[in-house]
Amino acid sequence: MINMEYKDKQLDEVKVFKDPVHRYVHVRDLVIWDLIATKEFQRLRRIKQLGTTYVTFHGAEHSRFNHSLGVYEIVRRMIKNFQQDEGWHPEERLTALCAALLHDLGHGPFSHSFEKVFGLDHEKFTRNIILGDTEVNEVLKRVDKTFPEKVASVIQKTYDDKLVVSMISSQIDADRMDYLLRDAYYTGVSYGHFDMERILRVMRPTEDQVVVKVTGMHAVEDYIMSRYQMYWQVYFHPVTRSAEVILTKIFKRVKYLYKDGYAFQIEPTLLLPLFKGNVDIDSYLQLDESVVNYYFQRWQYETDPILSDLCDRFMNRRLFKYIEYDPEREKSKLDKLEELFERANIDSTYYLTIDSSKDLPYDVYRKGKDRVPIYLQTSSGEEKELSTHSVIVEAITGKTREDHKLYYPSEKIAAIEDTSLREEILKLLHVRSSHNMLQ
Amino acid sequence: MINMEYKDKQLDEVKVFKDPVHRYVHVRDLVIWDLIATKEFQRLRRIKQLGTTYVTFHGAEHSRFNHSLGVYEIVRRMIKNFQQDEGWHPEERLTALCAALLHDLGHGPFSHSFEKVFGLDHEKFTRNIILGDTEVNEVLKRVDKTFPEKVASVIQKTYDDKLVVSMISSQIDADRMDYLLRDAYYTGVSYGHFDMERILRVMRPTEDQVVVKVTGMHAVEDYIMSRYQMYWQVYFHPVTRSAEVILTKIFKRVKYLYKDGYAFQIEPTLLLPLFKGNVDIDSYLQLDESVVNYYFQRWQYETDPILSDLCDRFMNRRLFKYIEYDPEREKSKLDKLEELFERANIDSTYYLTIDSSKDLPYDVYRKGKDRVPIYLQTSSGEEKELSTHSVIVEAITGKTREDHKLYYPSEKIAAIEDTSLREEILKLLHVRSSHNMLQ
Amino acid sequence: MINMEYKDKQLDEVKVFKDPVHRYVHVRDLVIWDLIATKEFQRLRRIKQLGTTYVTFHGAEHSRFNHSLGVYEIVRRMIKNFQQDEGWHPEERLTALCAALLHDLGHGPFSHSFEKVFGLDHEKFTRNIILGDTEVNEVLKRVDKTFPEKVASVIQKTYDDKLVVSMISSQIDADRMDYLLRDAYYTGVSYGHFDMERILRVMRPTEDQVVVKVTGMHAVEDYIMSRYQMYWQVYFHPVTRSAEVILTKIFKRVKYLYKDGYAFQIEPTLLLPLFKGNVDIDSYLQLDESVVNYYFQRWQYETDPILSDLCDRFMNRRLFKYIEYDPEREKSKLDKLEELFERANIDSTYYLTIDSSKDLPYDVYRKGKDRVPIYLQTSSGEEKELSTHSVIVEAITGKTREDHKLYYPSEKIAAIEDTSLREEILKLLHVRSSHNMLQ
Amino acid sequence: MINMEYKDKQLDEVKVFKDPVHRYVHVRDLVIWDLIATKEFQRLRRIKQLGTTYVTFHGAEHSRFNHSLGVYEIVRRMIKNFQQDEGWHPEERLTALCAALLHDLGHGPFSHSFEKVFGLDHEKFTRNIILGDTEVNEVLKRVDKTFPEKVASVIQKTYDDKLVVSMISSQIDADRMDYLLRDAYYTGVSYGHFDMERILRVMRPTEDQVVVKVTGMHAVEDYIMSRYQMYWQVYFHPVTRSAEVILTKIFKRVKYLYKDGYAFQIEPTLLLPLFKGNVDIDSYLQLDESVVNYYFQRWQYETDPILSDLCDRFMNRRLFKYIEYDPEREKSKLDKLEELFERANIDSTYYLTIDSSKDLPYDVYRKGKDRVPIYLQTSSGEEKELSTHSVIVEAITGKTREDHKLYYPSEKIAAIEDTSLREEILKLLHVRSSHNMLQ
Repeated sequence: MINMEYKDKQLDEVKVFKDPVHRYVHVRDLVIWDLIATKEFQRLRRIKQLGTTYVTFHGAEHSRFNHSLGVYEIVRRMIKNFQQDEGWHPEERLTALCAALLHDLGHGPFSHSFEKVFGLDHEKFTRNIILGDTEVNEVLKRVDKTFPEKVASVIQKTYDDKLVVSMISSQIDADRMDYLLRDAYYTGVSYGHFDMERILRVMRPTEDQVVVKVTGMHAVEDYIMSRYQMYWQVYFHPVTRSAEVILTKIFKRVKYLYKDGYAFQIEPTLLLPLFKGNVDIDSYLQLDESVVNYYFQRWQYETDPILSDLCDRFMNRRLFKYIEYDPEREKSKLDKLEELFERANIDSTYYLTIDSSKDLPYDVYRKGKDRVPIYLQTSSGEEKELSTHSVIVEAITGKTREDHKLYYPSEKIAAIEDTSLREEILKLLHVRSSHNMLQ
Repeated sequence: MINMEYKDKQLDEVKVFKDPVHRYVHVRDLVIWDLIATKEFQRLRRIKQLGTTYVTFHGAEHSRFNHSLGVYEIVRRMIKNFQQDEGWHPEERLTALCAALLHDLGHGPFSHSFEKVFGLDHEKFTRNIILGDTEVNEVLKRVDKTFPEKVASVIQKTYDDKLVVSMISSQIDADRMDYLLRDAYYTGVSYGHFDMERILRVMRPTEDQVVVKVTGMHAVEDYIMSRYQMYWQVYFHPVTRSAEVILTKIFKRVKYLYKDGYAFQIEPTLLLPLFKGNVDIDSYLQLDESVVNYYFQRWQYETDPILSDLCDRFMNRRLFKYIEYDPEREKSKLDKLEELFERANIDSTYYLTIDSSKDLPYDVYRKGKDRVPIYLQTSSGEEKELSTHSVIVEAITGKTREDHKLYYPSEKIAAIEDTSLREEILKLLHVRSSHNMLQ
Repeated sequence: MINMEYKDKQLDEVKVFKDPVHRYVHVRDLVIWDLIATKEFQRLRRIKQLGTTYVTFHGAEHSRFNHSLGVYEIVRRMIKNFQQDEGWHPEERLTALCAALLHDLGHGPFSHSFEKVFGLDHEKFTRNIILGDTEVNEVLKRVDKTFPEKVASVIQKTYDDKLVVSMISSQIDADRMDYLLRDAYYTGVSYGHFDMERILRVMRPTEDQVVVKVTGMHAVEDYIMSRYQMYWQVYFHPVTRSAEVILTKIFKRVKYLYKDGYAFQIEPTLLLPLFKGNVDIDSYLQLDESVVNYYFQRWQYETDPILSDLCDRFMNRRLFKYIEYDPEREKSKLDKLEELFERANIDSTYYLTIDSSKDLPYDVYRKGKDRVPIYLQTSSGEEKELSTHSVIVEAITGKTREDHKLYYPSEKIAAIEDTSLREEILKLLHVRSSHNMLQ
Repeated sequence: MINMEYKDKQLDEVKVFKDPVHRYVHVRDLVIWDLIATKEFQRLRRIKQLGTTYVTFHGAEHSRFNHSLGVYEIVRRMIKNFQQDEGWHPEERLTALCAALLHDLGHGPFSHSFEKVFGLDHEKFTRNIILGDTEVNEVLKRVDKTFPEKVASVIQKTYDDKLVVSMISSQIDADRMDYLLRDAYYTGVSYGHFDMERILRVMRPTEDQVVVKVTGMHAVEDYIMSRYQMYWQVYFHPVTRSAEVILTKIFKRVKYLYKDGYAFQIEPTLLLPLFKGNVDIDSYLQLDESVVNYYFQRWQYETDPILSDLCDRFMNRRLFKYIEYDPEREKSKLDKLEELFERANIDSTYYLTIDSSKDLPYDVYRKGKDRVPIYLQTSSGEEKELSTHSVIVEAITGKTREDHKLYYPSEKIAAIEDTSLREEILKLLHVRSSHNMLQ
């Protein structure tokens, strides 16, 4: 290995990681091996792939580390299948592999709520970690000084070689294929399965993107249906969203208390840069879900009643209940509830929330980022957009589905002493005697 | 439900938890539902079932919460199968279910190392949590004042009804069956599978214990082999043990520094009761793996070089390397290494360790706790100990297998400036150029 | 068991059949045990579930015996779940189980082609076997003289209790659920999976039919998509249809030769009643796929060139090739090909065929037999037709998909000596150099 | 492809066969494609892999065609893994693949019974089919005149390159690995699983045989245990053996009747060469299980009561019952039973049989054919026999397990009119009131 360039160095033998989804993840490139060993990549073990989904599906405790290895492995297999194809440029191999491995590097703890409250963007952090003064950057630079920028631009979807971009970001990319299969495996749901091996075999590299041979159309239909089911059955599950709502409220409350000069018993030291709006990479990388859980655990004992109540709810799964809500026709009901909550001395800023989910199973028109349509390659070599060939996909293309829920704290309402006020609130919430809280 | 006793109250409809191993976990008893909702039980979500195994098998990120539901579900199925059997006493149903659900309640973060360093016993804590001033105790007492004691004694194996004890603690109990299947599922290894459905169907309740109809002998053989494979392939994996060694050393160092009056930047506040030897239940329950990870994360920045190095190793997976070690013939080598380490200024208390694993695949003789032999019930109703019938089990009965490894920090050794000293150490460690660190 | 009525007699212990799809099939009723042991039911072992599908998917070698046990098991589980429901009439239990077990009893060898050529109806034979002088009838009569008629009428969908009928014949019945899962398992395709356990748990008995609780909607959507994929990927596979075409032609040729007085070396003795149009049950029951394969094997050596060629094709998988065909626009092409075949001395009656497939993934309008719409039961107890709730199902409801293929014998065409005639035919067939014959 | 030698010709694109066990079987070599299309290979579709096992495990209806493709696929993967190894001779590739595919070509219908009664040897027929005037031979000869002989000698284990032989015939070869996994899949038993992917990855080619890297030892242990369980749970199942006993008796009776000049209504035309002892390849290849089933079906109506009874038993699963039998201590019981059977006018030649099973889970000593020990390759390159390293394998090495059963027709005995004679027989058979006939 002595005189070989770093980018070409191989391990003495293939290292394999036992993976329940892809059986084995294979690593032979020293670059990949070194990247996995960086502290920034190891940090992903402390960030769950599905955030708070574990409150609904107890099996969903897997991390982004787990998923990142999976995306890498899928791209590795894609490239192996492309080897004989003219459309594939072999010199892009390492770039594609590194981008696949590192694409989620910038995720923070409980990403979505976290980003929302603090106005962060994990994609920006991914870029900054790759380009900043980090172990990851140090490894990538050993390949070539411009290499970190190349890898970052693939993840940002600005890279010149659109084919490489589409392997990681498109409507049928390694990222989506891995998370659908992986999340289905860990939650235990029967949705989310599709024949990835077949899809990989019928994928072909073209100048602009990966396309799929028409003989694989049914496997792609199956993938799109799996995606649809996973979104509505798992990702948008209203109980999970209840935990997300509480999480958001905790961050919001802490931020408020900090600005308000509240004297914390346990200071949110590691969150301060977020409040001040000057998060550098070092402080960002110290944030993970252990840290957040530590704070929440301790804040159960703070004197601020809202903070301690919300933290107790989050830690001990005392979630908000919910009802269906129609934003177009029920605005007045919401206003009324806010008024009643005020009378009952319940702060509706933290205890009354609308949460919405919305999904397009497949979209051919909105050609924005991540929404490149899927193209089928016919036996004569032409490319046709999927929905022009598939009766099933055509039927669902562009069919948006929306869902809105109103979340509220049932225990607080039950504790209202003024009977008529309580009854009025309960009536507006149509509360039946019991709720199926879990599934 | 109004006039019904609490112990008989049922949910309006069966609640199901989607479980990847048993497909669904079914809950109908209100008592079980309420126990799951307690904060002591929810805490188990923050304690991994397999401690540090995730450093070797990245899929092994599942919690004790996950496993505890599984053990409950298996006992529920056992009881369902026993319903028609005279040997089964229906009044023991709720006791058995609660004991199954709660049997791991007292586990601390990274249990084994933790208990070792601080001289704790998770079984004692399980008992104390069940009997102490906790939400779990409050739920159990609603059944009957003596009920917490009953449940605790089943877990302690002192309960009168030995049959109930054997369902949760024997060589083929719900606990073992669940963890073998579950740990195999999450790690993704192909070992660990056996036909639990068949075993459950051939189990029969007798006065002293659960026995297995002779027609199920092969399924039991398969279970014993799975157990053997899981121990050596997963639980005793030398890379995992390397992480365990580091973990133990961190706890040891912190304890030492605390006694030595070291000024921590981040005080180990929640660990203080452990150092002082007066851990009450409340402070114990505040300990989970988020807390421990938080401390370790922060301690990377402490001034004590040993503590910060060990924490960096644990958080960023910079593990000790290992070689085989023969405790009977290589004692002098160990002594020599200690001496050389001292000359190299490496503290062998923290950086040179022997770790041993030892297992009996099946033991008929050592009839201590957890080691009740497995009995087969012949078609004529007789009970015969398994190894008298099974050629395979007879062959392996009592065959102890041992394994010893010596762990050391390869980077520290590589950094020794005195070449001859370094070479002397390396020679004793037979270091080859590369090590397969992962599998 | 002595004084018990036959219908209530139970085996000493549950007998289980190991089943790869449902894990175990459980039998406790003596009636069911006795029915399985009848020769008419055992005959189903010699009739493949998927006819000629094995030429495409080599794993599809399973029999109707296999499937029939599966349908029985699903109905058994349905009834177990219904036990607490008012809507279920416990006295219908045995009728439902027997109808499930026996619903395919009248299938002949390679059913579809066989029925088409000889103008038979397997449902009529099922009825006749149940009511005729058979072992099955003898067992059923032991329950009650009117019992055979009851069981037959359930299978015929004329039974009074529509709920029982719907368990075996509806758009989401035990028959369909079993064959989708089973055929997916044996072929090895990844389609065809859905969460049957969940569907069974959310099914509720009502007066007219089994309905599904709205909470199970996604599982039903998944089932409908599986059905769609299995139809187009497996059941309508053009290579399988090629074998079906040849099979049909063999039966047609034999019938023709028989009427024409051809002197068979091996007489089609067991088929004679079919030719004469007077098939009684005894002679029908002697027909199975071993018999048909025996004849085909031997007829390879007959002097009639068409019969021997077709039998060689069927036995040795020398199938017809195919091209897409548009019946509306390409009729003239077909006429032209027939004319050219005549000039080339190839009998287009046997060697040129259009075969069509057509499917509706879900139909709410056409309420004929087997097409009862699926109803969801809302939490308030209302019943709503599936497509009014499911965006996905609404999108595909009523979307017929059709496919037509033209089959031809490539070897015979290649052997045409007149070059210009051959070229003209090949041009009409757009033959490219190679065909993917398998998948 | 024009100027390429036949042996190097590749299909335009990889053809894949969907396989439930290996997911996909990949074919690229034209030689393999052409071999699969031969009539001799297609005939294997009509011979079940597990003979009469379907009477016990209804899922076991898969054919030798199915298995043969699987063995080919495993060898293909082995070779792919060997590509970089010095020990592997690339020029042996096609020979190994063809031998794998064709290794079972000579099997007759219900092989074991068939061979036993008629004194045949399927391995000899495999050789003769490969070397004779067959389509298979024609394809192989196109590679090279000596190629058929090479392929045949690999299957016969006389080929010079012992490494190639060991890939198909050794204690851990492609044949065994495929059938264990495949038979487990189709029967649905949970035994029979092991991590083949891992075993394939740790296999290394050496001069004499395939060896396994020591890091794969546990996977090999698991394989050996799977093998043990499959033998005792599936292959030696006493109910299956009952069907085998009947099958043997039918062949015996037909042979006897033929020699005795019995006038068959349906002549055993295709069996005549067997009776005469002059089976040529053509007549042998016409024998398959359809033919045998056809005869048995028809012979139910023969006038010979023994033949018609036995055929009825076989076709309609009216099997012999059995009891344990100790050949060393119960010889006098057998003699007595024979005498009593004679008095009861039951021909004990056909109705009283001892059947024995015997297996060695792993054998290091008996180094005969198929019994080459398994060698582990240590990290230093040494080869050590498996049982010297594995505690588990050492424990079971050489432990023969035997099982003997006595089979008898319960209905015939029940029908004996002489009460005391009947009782005497029943007493000797220790008949309890019921038997679990299925599992």
